[in-house]
Amino acid sequence: MISQKMKKLVEGSSAIRAMFEEGKKMIAERGEENVFDFSLGNPSIVPPDTVKKAMLDVIENEDTMTLHGYMNNAGFESTRQALADSLNKRFNAGAKLGDIVVTVGAAGGLNVALRSLINPGEEVMILAPFFGEYTNYIANVDGTPVIISPMKDFGINITEIEAKITEKTRCIIINSPNNPTGRVYTEDELKSLADLLAKKQKEFKTSIYIIADEPYREIVFGGRKAPFIPAIYPNTIVGYSFAKSLSLPGERIGYIYLPKSVDDYDNILGAMTVANRILGFVNAPSFMQKVIERVVDETADISVYEDNKNVLCSALKEYGYELNEPQGTFYAFPKSPIEDDKKFCADAKEYGLVIVPGSSFGAPGYFRIAFCVKPEKVKASLPAFKKAIERYKK
Amino acid sequence: MISQKMKKLVEGSSAIRAMFEEGKKMIAERGEENVFDFSLGNPSIVPPDTVKKAMLDVIENEDTMTLHGYMNNAGFESTRQALADSLNKRFNAGAKLGDIVVTVGAAGGLNVALRSLINPGEEVMILAPFFGEYTNYIANVDGTPVIISPMKDFGINITEIEAKITEKTRCIIINSPNNPTGRVYTEDELKSLADLLAKKQKEFKTSIYIIADEPYREIVFGGRKAPFIPAIYPNTIVGYSFAKSLSLPGERIGYIYLPKSVDDYDNILGAMTVANRILGFVNAPSFMQKVIERVVDETADISVYEDNKNVLCSALKEYGYELNEPQGTFYAFPKSPIEDDKKFCADAKEYGLVIVPGSSFGAPGYFRIAFCVKPEKVKASLPAFKKAIERYKK
Repeated sequence: MISQKMKKLVEGSSAIRAMFEEGKKMIAERGEENVFDFSLGNPSIVPPDTVKKAMLDVIENEDTMTLHGYMNNAGFESTRQALADSLNKRFNAGAKLGDIVVTVGAAGGLNVALRSLINPGEEVMILAPFFGEYTNYIANVDGTPVIISPMKDFGINITEIEAKITEKTRCIIINSPNNPTGRVYTEDELKSLADLLAKKQKEFKTSIYIIADEPYREIVFGGRKAPFIPAIYPNTIVGYSFAKSLSLPGERIGYIYLPKSVDDYDNILGAMTVANRILGFVNAPSFMQKVIERVVDETADISVYEDNKNVLCSALKEYGYELNEPQGTFYAFPKSPIEDDKKFCADAKEYGLVIVPGSSFGAPGYFRIAFCVKPEKVKASLPAFKKAIERYKK
Repeated sequence: MISQKMKKLVEGSSAIRAMFEEGKKMIAERGEENVFDFSLGNPSIVPPDTVKKAMLDVIENEDTMTLHGYMNNAGFESTRQALADSLNKRFNAGAKLGDIVVTVGAAGGLNVALRSLINPGEEVMILAPFFGEYTNYIANVDGTPVIISPMKDFGINITEIEAKITEKTRCIIINSPNNPTGRVYTEDELKSLADLLAKKQKEFKTSIYIIADEPYREIVFGGRKAPFIPAIYPNTIVGYSFAKSLSLPGERIGYIYLPKSVDDYDNILGAMTVANRILGFVNAPSFMQKVIERVVDETADISVYEDNKNVLCSALKEYGYELNEPQGTFYAFPKSPIEDDKKFCADAKEYGLVIVPGSSFGAPGYFRIAFCVKPEKVKASLPAFKKAIERYKK
């Protein structure tokens, strides 16, 4: 008797969450030391001390009524100013507080952006492999997902985008650093994409937006920097979250940055502010807005993720896994040793491994390792990964 | 170029919010002492001290990683247990933690409930006058709102509900204590509604749910109690928020209580948990969950609202306003002295009054006063209300 839309979703409910629940059950049965749970992107590093200091400072020094009260649906002006200042300092963005909508995490932000842009049946491009929730968010607004096949190096498949782009293409979601591949798109790749989109906008006389979903912006390896996409393509809407950089995923705090260069800026800004309200978010949690304002340029000690990546990837290669080494995030996305990635992940449970099939990300034949776990756990898991591939070599 | 759905919403954007912005402008122009802003339901009482104590306790004593991390999309088990315990203590509800989904305020909860229940074109009944956002929430799921006309005493219009109920009626939203009328439905009224719905369920072989939207449950006057609706009608889903009782509207924290007595309990519970995720809420803000857990039975000093109501209503009656005295909430909903409620509210600005036309609540010919302001402000506003009605008596 529940709605049809939810019926399908409940049945196919997040394989990642299911694996996470499975992992908890395995721990109860086998003992914590025998289970290696790489299922969920839940940061493993404590938030920096400055977050606690900021929380105490907010409690002591902000006016209680303002702190817990309603504000403009786009967020506190002081918070939006701090976010704009940070973008200007880091990327020379030319952002003003009016360009920022504070959101209930990146998930809230994406839903607000899609609700503002998409009419039923309009097309939203996503690049496989992709974060599984994208198709749900597109379904929320009755949009049509157009899925672009993965490249061997997990780069942007420009040829297929060009082939599949139509007059109905309203936006393309770009997630770099990428979940689940760990790929960081290069400036050159993004320029090729920007050129193509600009050409197609002209040809179709439409606006085609990039929605840059960037919760992993800070988590990059080898001294890399993730290019700032609005500087490459003017029609870019940026979604951000402090879930990963500050290890605050449960707090639901992020923002949308709408550069002035975006077509139809005023209407989109108005629509996003109203969408934040009518979708039921109303505003981002007020206490956390005031906290973020104080720590906007901080991160947790994310260097742990690079160490984990190094240990894990060199071992996986040694054992014979095929793998593009992640350039950021805390995910690796190796090839499944057997064609059937779901069977591989099921078999791997025998060795205590909790990993997610590539099918959950629109890329069968791969699997995802979320290595946001303690370094000891990564080391302890290596024999299990070895056994998991060796069973197929006999 | 924004979506059609948002275009309409942005154009007709919340009159209440518009009045609130207008109020701020008037204050800047005329001085704070000459403006009486009764536009927004933003609590005027500070949260109780125990909220601050709870916040400090959470910071000092909860494990940082758990506190800020992901949890089940339905919320922390400890928080859900505290909420269930409170319902059991107060209403003998027989609630278990599994019956609770912690939500991003009542707005988040209503959207989650509607997404779980409603297929496009199915009917959701709402009783005029109603909180204006209901029609937006129903539009979010492409449901059809069926509006029931107001009764003179703002009671439940059983006759019209019976006339308009169909096989497509999936639920009816009941908001008691009511925004904007301040009406608290009696046990007898609710029983008549329950009898009708039970009869119609049998006749149509459907399930018809009451969604009880109860953010004002605690704010009741004259020693009244708002009846606990699941005890009267088994197919009741309760939505709650701590925005008003604890003066925390910006924090976006509330919950849904799904009693075991509800038809299709398991599927609805599953759907609501997934809906919380896929609508982009993911989970209620984690820090505030842990705070609420510690203060679940507290309220701010809400007696101020009853004092405000007494002062305001006796004066309004004296000046000649027609009015059903509010029985709870912090709203009064008098008749507009002239037929055109929008003109009345526009005229009233001359005297510094910022009030909202009844049209915004589906009840033209009335206006709403949100008396969640300082008692001095209520007293100071009385001459303005006197002048506002007297101009039409000449």
